[in-house]
Amino acid sequence: MANLYDSAYDLEKAIRESVEFNELKTAFQAVMNNPTSRKMFEDFRNTQMELQQKQMQGLNITEQEVENARKIVELVQQHEGIANLMEKEQRLNVVINELSQIITKPLEELYGGQ
Amino acid sequence: MANLYDSAYDLEKAIRESVEFNELKTAFQAVMNNPTSRKMFEDFRNTQMELQQKQMQGLNITEQEVENARKIVELVQQHEGIANLMEKEQRLNVVINELSQIITKPLEELYGGQ
Ligand SMILES: [Ca+2]
Ligand SMILES: [Ca+2]
Repeated sequence: MANLYDSAYDLEKAIRESVEFNELKTAFQAVMNNPTSRKMFEDFRNTQMELQQKQMQGLNITEQEVENARKIVELVQQHEGIANLMEKEQRLNVVINELSQIITKPLEELYGGQ
Repeated sequence: MANLYDSAYDLEKAIRESVEFNELKTAFQAVMNNPTSRKMFEDFRNTQMELQQKQMQGLNITEQEVENARKIVELVQQHEGIANLMEKEQRLNVVINELSQIITKPLEELYGGQ
């Protein structure tokens, strides 16, 4: 019987060595190494997090805020480096979601099987 | 380089074979096999999910609903089988959270390291 934590560390290592993670890392570092793209990306991130938090707290999001967010998304999508970073994030997210579905299968079967 | 999905399936197997998962399974089946405890547990679950959904949607939760939820929690905590099930759930949750922290370390390092 494999140890739970050994198995988790093996998976962590596999993620760290995966093509998807390393492509993300490269894309992230390219954006971070350029002050302009870094600031643009951080503004984008902060705006997204603020809106998410408001949504989770059930707070009102103004038309102005929606419009601002839309503009920032448009801006970052036109930036090649950030668009690339977002694509790599998306790809790794797909993988992580698939891994997560595999791992939580025992629980899903237990609670879904009744 | 270990394959990502092989590693995830190994971890899934380790979870399935773990003491914590098997204790939860036993506790869950004991509750489900008794119509009274099963109904009590399902009422509890449904009440919790309803409140969580309302919270996530930013909807108002009435005093009556809070009071109802409190009574149901009190009731299930006095039921030995359900109290045991909730303890086993709690224990597996702790393990799953620890595993999740291990697995997401590469991403945390990447985004936290700047
Ligand atoms: Ca790829
Ligand atoms: Ca135990």
